[in-house]
Amino acid sequence: MNKAPYAARHEELKARKLNLNMMRGIPSKAQLELSRGLLTCLGDDDYLSEAGADCRNYGILDGLPEMKRIFADILDLTPGEIVVGGNSSLALMFDNVASNMSRGVREDLPWAAQGHVKFLCPSPGYDRHFTVCDYFHIEMIPIEMTDTGPDMDEVERLVSSDPLIKGIWCVPVFSNPTGIIYSDETVRRFANLKPAAHDFRIYWDNAYVIHQLTGEKRQIPNIVRECAKAGNPHMPMVFTSFSKVSFPGAAVTCIASSAENCEYIKKRLTAQTIGPDKLRQLMHVRFFGGAEGVYKHMQKHADILRPKFELIEETLRRELSGLDGCSWTTPEGGYFVSFDTPDGCAKRVAALCSEAGVAFTPAGATFPGGNDPRDRNIRIAPTFPPLEELKVALDVFCNAVLLAAAER
Amino acid sequence: MNKAPYAARHEELKARKLNLNMMRGIPSKAQLELSRGLLTCLGDDDYLSEAGADCRNYGILDGLPEMKRIFADILDLTPGEIVVGGNSSLALMFDNVASNMSRGVREDLPWAAQGHVKFLCPSPGYDRHFTVCDYFHIEMIPIEMTDTGPDMDEVERLVSSDPLIKGIWCVPVFSNPTGIIYSDETVRRFANLKPAAHDFRIYWDNAYVIHQLTGEKRQIPNIVRECAKAGNPHMPMVFTSFSKVSFPGAAVTCIASSAENCEYIKKRLTAQTIGPDKLRQLMHVRFFGGAEGVYKHMQKHADILRPKFELIEETLRRELSGLDGCSWTTPEGGYFVSFDTPDGCAKRVAALCSEAGVAFTPAGATFPGGNDPRDRNIRIAPTFPPLEELKVALDVFCNAVLLAAAER
Repeated sequence: MNKAPYAARHEELKARKLNLNMMRGIPSKAQLELSRGLLTCLGDDDYLSEAGADCRNYGILDGLPEMKRIFADILDLTPGEIVVGGNSSLALMFDNVASNMSRGVREDLPWAAQGHVKFLCPSPGYDRHFTVCDYFHIEMIPIEMTDTGPDMDEVERLVSSDPLIKGIWCVPVFSNPTGIIYSDETVRRFANLKPAAHDFRIYWDNAYVIHQLTGEKRQIPNIVRECAKAGNPHMPMVFTSFSKVSFPGAAVTCIASSAENCEYIKKRLTAQTIGPDKLRQLMHVRFFGGAEGVYKHMQKHADILRPKFELIEETLRRELSGLDGCSWTTPEGGYFVSFDTPDGCAKRVAALCSEAGVAFTPAGATFPGGNDPRDRNIRIAPTFPPLEELKVALDVFCNAVLLAAAER
Repeated sequence: MNKAPYAARHEELKARKLNLNMMRGIPSKAQLELSRGLLTCLGDDDYLSEAGADCRNYGILDGLPEMKRIFADILDLTPGEIVVGGNSSLALMFDNVASNMSRGVREDLPWAAQGHVKFLCPSPGYDRHFTVCDYFHIEMIPIEMTDTGPDMDEVERLVSSDPLIKGIWCVPVFSNPTGIIYSDETVRRFANLKPAAHDFRIYWDNAYVIHQLTGEKRQIPNIVRECAKAGNPHMPMVFTSFSKVSFPGAAVTCIASSAENCEYIKKRLTAQTIGPDKLRQLMHVRFFGGAEGVYKHMQKHADILRPKFELIEETLRRELSGLDGCSWTTPEGGYFVSFDTPDGCAKRVAALCSEAGVAFTPAGATFPGGNDPRDRNIRIAPTFPPLEELKVALDVFCNAVLLAAAER
C-alpha cells in the first residue's frame, strides 16, 4: 500500500486549516430549535401541578407525579418506580455510586468498607461511566462487547465468582459508542445473574431508549420486570434523561428501580436536598403533554440525524471498504458510530485528524483507563456539526485511516 | 399561677379545629408573586450567554460568568471564587461533606478514613445541617449560641485541641433560628482559628445574607478575605441561594471559597455531572439584571415580611412579657423568631399547639439529635401563613406557653 497519495491529500487537508469538533455527543442547533417552545410554554400564572401544588415553592422531593408518569411510560414502569432528578443523569449515577460507596446499598455495609471494589466495564463503552469509577478508585474490568451486548459468559463467570464486583455499566439501547441493542437473551441473562455480592447493581443507562433513527421505539425486555421475575428485584438501577430530547442545558432526568429502592433514594434525598427544580419539570409536562408527545418529538430529531448517519455509512463504505482490518457499526439510533481501525492505528488516526483540524474523542477513551488494548477504536460523534461540516470531517477521517494503515 | 383560664381557652381554641402550619421557613404566595415575571422573562430566542454560548446545550460546568458575577457581588467576592449550583444550596453542602468524607479535603485523606469525625453545631441551629451530619454518622458537638454568634471560647478550645473536629455549621447573618448576626469579633475569631485538623472547614451558610427586614444589607466582615488574611485561605466554604429570593422550586445557588478550592470543586464536577441548568441561570440574570436588582427585589420581600415579624413581637410582648423564664429574639431579618419557654416546657407547648391544630417545628429540632437539654427552644416560622392566620396561630401559641408554664 503506497502512502504517498494519502500523505499528499493529508497535506492538502491540513492547508485548509479546518476547525471541526466531533468529540462529543452534542445535539446540533437545529435539534435544539425543535424545543423552542419549551422556553415559553409556562405562562406567568401556570405554576400549579395537577394536584394543586405550587411548583414555585418547596416540596415534592421525588418529582411531580405527572413528570414521573411520562418517565414511567417511556420506561414501561410505574410512577412508584421513578425518582425524578435534575439536569444531568450522570449526576444521578455518580450520586448513586457515591451513596453505595459511603453508605452502602440499601444502608448495608458501604462498598468502600468492603475492600477494593470493582466494576465490569463493557468496552468500548461510555468514557464518563469510567470516569465515575476512576473518581471513586473503583477497579475497572473491561468486558468485550459483541453485537448482542457484553460477553455474557464472561459477565456471568466474573459476577458469580467475585463478591468485590459490585456493578456493571450498561447502555442497553443504542449503546455508546457501538450503537448496538442488547438482545433479549442478553437482557434475560442479566436479570438472571447470580452475583457473589448480595449488593451487586446493574447500572442500566438507558440514555438512548427513544433515540431511534427510523421507525418505532425499540423494545427490549424490561430489565426491572425481568429482574423481579428472576428473584433479583433490587438489582437494576435504570437511568434516563431528556438531555437529548429537550435541552442538555435545561433537562429533567430520572432514576428508576424497584419501589423499595426508590424509597431508599427518597430517604437519602430528605438529607441531601431541599427539593428539585419543579418548574423545569412542569415545563416539560406542558411542552410534551405525555409520552406520546415525546415520541412524536423524537421523530423530528431522527429526521435531522438520519442523513448524518447515512452520510457516514455511505462515505465509509465508499472510501474504506477495500481496507483490510477496519470495520464500523451501522446503528439504528443513538448518537455514535463506533469505528475500528486496523490494529495499532487508532491513536495515529486521531493525531492525523487533529493535525488537520478535526477533533475526535481521544483514541482509547472508550476503554477503562483510556487503554484500548488493540489501539483501534474511535468514536464518531456526528450529531453536532451541520451536514456540510460532517462531510469535510469524514474526508479528513477516511484519509487519515488510509494514511495510518499505509504507514504500517 | 392558675392554669384554669388557659386550659379553658385552650379548649375553645381546639374547638375551632384549626389547621395552620408554622413548621418551615417557606415563602408565602404573596412573596412568590414578586417573581412572577421570572417565568416568562426568557423569550423563545433568548438563550445566548453574554459570551455567546448557547445555554440550551451542554457545557459551562461551573456556571455562567454573568450569574457568578451576581453571586460575587452579593457575597463581596470575585467570580473566580464562585461555583454555581442547582436548585438547592443544601444539596451543595451535602455534596461537599460527602466529598470530604469519601475523597478528602482537596484530595487529602478522606475524613471517613481518619476515624470518628465530629462537627461543632452551634445550637439552637438549623435542623437540616444536623441531618447532614446524622446521615454521614458525624458526631455533633453542640455549642452554645450567644447574641454575637457561637460561644467562640468554646469553639477555639475544641477546634484547636481535637484533630477529629472537621467542621462547624454557621448561619452568620440572621441565624437560623435566632436571627442574630455574628459580630465582627466573632467573624475574625473564626478566621483566626488554629485548627488541630489541617482539613477543618467552616460551613458558612449565608442563606439570609440579603434577607433584612429593614434598611440596608447587613455587612459583616468577609469571611473569605478574613481567613486569607489570617493564613487560612481555604478554610471557609460559603453557600447562598436564591430559594428565598426568586422561587424555592426553581432557584440558583452557589458555593464560594478560595479560587483554589473552586478548582477542586470543578475537578469533582467533571466526574460528577454533565452540567448545570444554564437556562435557569440565564433566567435569573435577565430577571434581576444584577445585584442591585436583587437588592431592590429583597425590599419587596421585606415589605411583606416586616408586618409578620412586628405582629410576633407585639403579640409576645403583650401576652408573655409577664411570664418568668421565657424570652424570644427580635431579628432584623431572616425567616425565624427563636422562642425560649421556661425550662422543660417546649415539648409540652408544641404538643398543645398541635392539639389545637397549629404545627410548629418539633421542639428540640433546633438541637443536634433533637435533644434540647433545657427543653425550651421553639422556632417560630411566620413567613408562610397570611397575617390573619399568623395572628390566630400566635394566639394558640401564647396560650399554650401560659398553660404549659402554669401546669408546672
